[in-house]
Amino acid sequence: MMSLPTTDRNRLQQDLDALSAITEPGIPWTRRSFTPMFLEGRRHLEERFRAEGLSTEIDAAGNLVGRWQGEDPSLPVLMTGSHSDTVPSGGRFDGIAGIVCGLAAIGALRAAGYRPRHTIELVDFLAEEPSEWGLSCIGSRGMAGALGPEHLAMKGPDNEALADAIRRVGGAPEEIRQHRRTDIGGFVEIHIEQGPVLERLGIPVGIVTAIAGIARLRIRIEGEAAHAGTAPMTMRADAGVAMASLVLALRDAARAVEGQGHFTATVGIIRFEPGGANVVPGSAEVIVDIRAESDQAMDDFLVLAEKLASQSAAKENCRVAVLEKLSRTFAVACDPSLRAAIADSAGELNLQTLPLASGAGHDAAFVAQIAPAAMIFVPSRDGKSHTPEEWTDTEALALAADLLTRMLVRLDQRPETPRHP
Amino acid sequence: MMSLPTTDRNRLQQDLDALSAITEPGIPWTRRSFTPMFLEGRRHLEERFRAEGLSTEIDAAGNLVGRWQGEDPSLPVLMTGSHSDTVPSGGRFDGIAGIVCGLAAIGALRAAGYRPRHTIELVDFLAEEPSEWGLSCIGSRGMAGALGPEHLAMKGPDNEALADAIRRVGGAPEEIRQHRRTDIGGFVEIHIEQGPVLERLGIPVGIVTAIAGIARLRIRIEGEAAHAGTAPMTMRADAGVAMASLVLALRDAARAVEGQGHFTATVGIIRFEPGGANVVPGSAEVIVDIRAESDQAMDDFLVLAEKLASQSAAKENCRVAVLEKLSRTFAVACDPSLRAAIADSAGELNLQTLPLASGAGHDAAFVAQIAPAAMIFVPSRDGKSHTPEEWTDTEALALAADLLTRMLVRLDQRPETPRHP
Repeated sequence: MMSLPTTDRNRLQQDLDALSAITEPGIPWTRRSFTPMFLEGRRHLEERFRAEGLSTEIDAAGNLVGRWQGEDPSLPVLMTGSHSDTVPSGGRFDGIAGIVCGLAAIGALRAAGYRPRHTIELVDFLAEEPSEWGLSCIGSRGMAGALGPEHLAMKGPDNEALADAIRRVGGAPEEIRQHRRTDIGGFVEIHIEQGPVLERLGIPVGIVTAIAGIARLRIRIEGEAAHAGTAPMTMRADAGVAMASLVLALRDAARAVEGQGHFTATVGIIRFEPGGANVVPGSAEVIVDIRAESDQAMDDFLVLAEKLASQSAAKENCRVAVLEKLSRTFAVACDPSLRAAIADSAGELNLQTLPLASGAGHDAAFVAQIAPAAMIFVPSRDGKSHTPEEWTDTEALALAADLLTRMLVRLDQRPETPRHP
Repeated sequence: MMSLPTTDRNRLQQDLDALSAITEPGIPWTRRSFTPMFLEGRRHLEERFRAEGLSTEIDAAGNLVGRWQGEDPSLPVLMTGSHSDTVPSGGRFDGIAGIVCGLAAIGALRAAGYRPRHTIELVDFLAEEPSEWGLSCIGSRGMAGALGPEHLAMKGPDNEALADAIRRVGGAPEEIRQHRRTDIGGFVEIHIEQGPVLERLGIPVGIVTAIAGIARLRIRIEGEAAHAGTAPMTMRADAGVAMASLVLALRDAARAVEGQGHFTATVGIIRFEPGGANVVPGSAEVIVDIRAESDQAMDDFLVLAEKLASQSAAKENCRVAVLEKLSRTFAVACDPSLRAAIADSAGELNLQTLPLASGAGHDAAFVAQIAPAAMIFVPSRDGKSHTPEEWTDTEALALAADLLTRMLVRLDQRPETPRHP
């Protein structure tokens, strides 16, 4: 393998600072998709893409695509990138890390005079975060041809249809289906971990094994509302106590499954009714968020959750009134050959790696529908994300960019990069 | 003991029906204190009091007092009664049961030609239920001289001061202190149990041992908010799980104390924050309602609750951020000699009795500050109260009225009724 320069740390820092500084004033770090601030960030990125020698275009789904033409146009495209939109207050690294690392890797290759055989694309996917239109991963869904009429008709602020919003940012929503990409040989996305694992273990690189499937359950337990003073403890059907018991049971059960791969179950919303200090709760409701690297583990847990709910309710003379699956997505495995390429490239750089699943959704999960896809995670300080405190050291991003540089060369020089069917 | 007629069941039924029918249209059974509907109920009661031969007046605190002059004016007054105001939708029996039973007992005595030595008073206490002024038991507080300037200044609807509201219903707030009653030899209040104990045990008469003290705690546990997908189960500080564990621990601890007398601990209000389905709760808050017949048991439990909160929090890597006593009242014991008089009168009638504490507050607790006081409970169907389904059979009320009749005679004929110091 040729000798490659390392990432320009100063340039990377400048790119991070410049892009993150494009934020709604007073609520850093905020650049919500489709807003004027988002479009200002896009204009900045477009300039930077061009400064690194990339041609740019907005594709049909509204993604900003920077293109470095390869020497052999018959070969499939190698793609990297992430997203520049943010959640409110939480976008200092979430999203832009993968774009600035892509810029840094391409800059390093150009500085070394590298001439790729494959065309290399750097993508800023449109609206990865949950948007005002009620949908996330809009651009990557579109690239995969998975953005249908029902999505395009969704209404956002001022009753604007998603199709119109995509058109407003430069896309061509009516052409999304016919522009479904089939020319991508491999996609790799660098992203902050958004969790505490890499930092706690002191490992600089996470190789994502899979993007977890997510299920949401609404569980409602009903008992008997009663006067807090006059209903003896032994004569109650306290739905609140039953629900407390279920919250603990779900947590314990999730912990037991966790050894078999990434698995979480979380109760973030709870409500007791009627909700008076002096009334024994007659009913209690929770939303349970479940994430699993293994669809089988998810299937098993959904069955178990129903059993645990019945048991917790019965113990308190209550009953399960509602157990409703609000949503369910399936896990997406990352491409083994790309994972191996990441691991081998890390080995060259003496970077320790950890295989781990992503509990959060990412554009890579949609790109995986049309191409081999993989992800590289970098450590998040204290595991914090989607808050103003979100932080990743520049050196950690630079190491990921070094890794990406080598990986792109490795993929580019493979005897044959398989084209996705 | 003289032969006494039993309660006129038809008359009792008519009184119940007539008074409960005076309700806000569309939201039975509602007669909120100080409202026009309440005053209509009062006018009806005043007529009924007079029809039973009682002279009537509104005392300084706004209580409607019906008076049957005794033959020996030097003897202290024997008092019975309850309240005619209601909570929203929940006043078909709560309150008025004690007034109509008092009317029935006096009616029975008059029908028998009885001439009491002691003056007998039947009282409709003003605003026993939590009122729009933020205070409950207004009339009985006033009778006990426990209604101070700070209470009288409290503001209700249309910014009306409580003093003005009391004046509006016929009271003389400026004279409340000087009219503190010191002439009451004994007070007995008939009330529905508002709990399930008597019905489940098939016992018609509860002899109240004490009116429980009430404490309210606000407990806030703080952990670390985190992404529900990316924070592994083993690396969380989930304040929601910690709080669920505390809810169970408090319940278990309350059950353990319950054997030593009436004791309840209830969590009717719970909140997880930030309250997103995909966020591990960073904090959780509850209000705990604790009621104890024994002040010592309450003291012990308040100490224990703090320990349990710390333990539940620590188990989940969380901490107790707030443990605040919002309020605390002390238990009020019922007068032993009055309790004995109830038991003996019930024995004459072959009525089975059960000693039990009241977990709810009552006017009797305030009257107990100035006179021997006691309560008789009658069964509530399914233990329901403060709902439209609240129900007590007329025959159960008639038996209580029979009991009250005999008890009044028993007290009236005691060699000397002790005057409260």
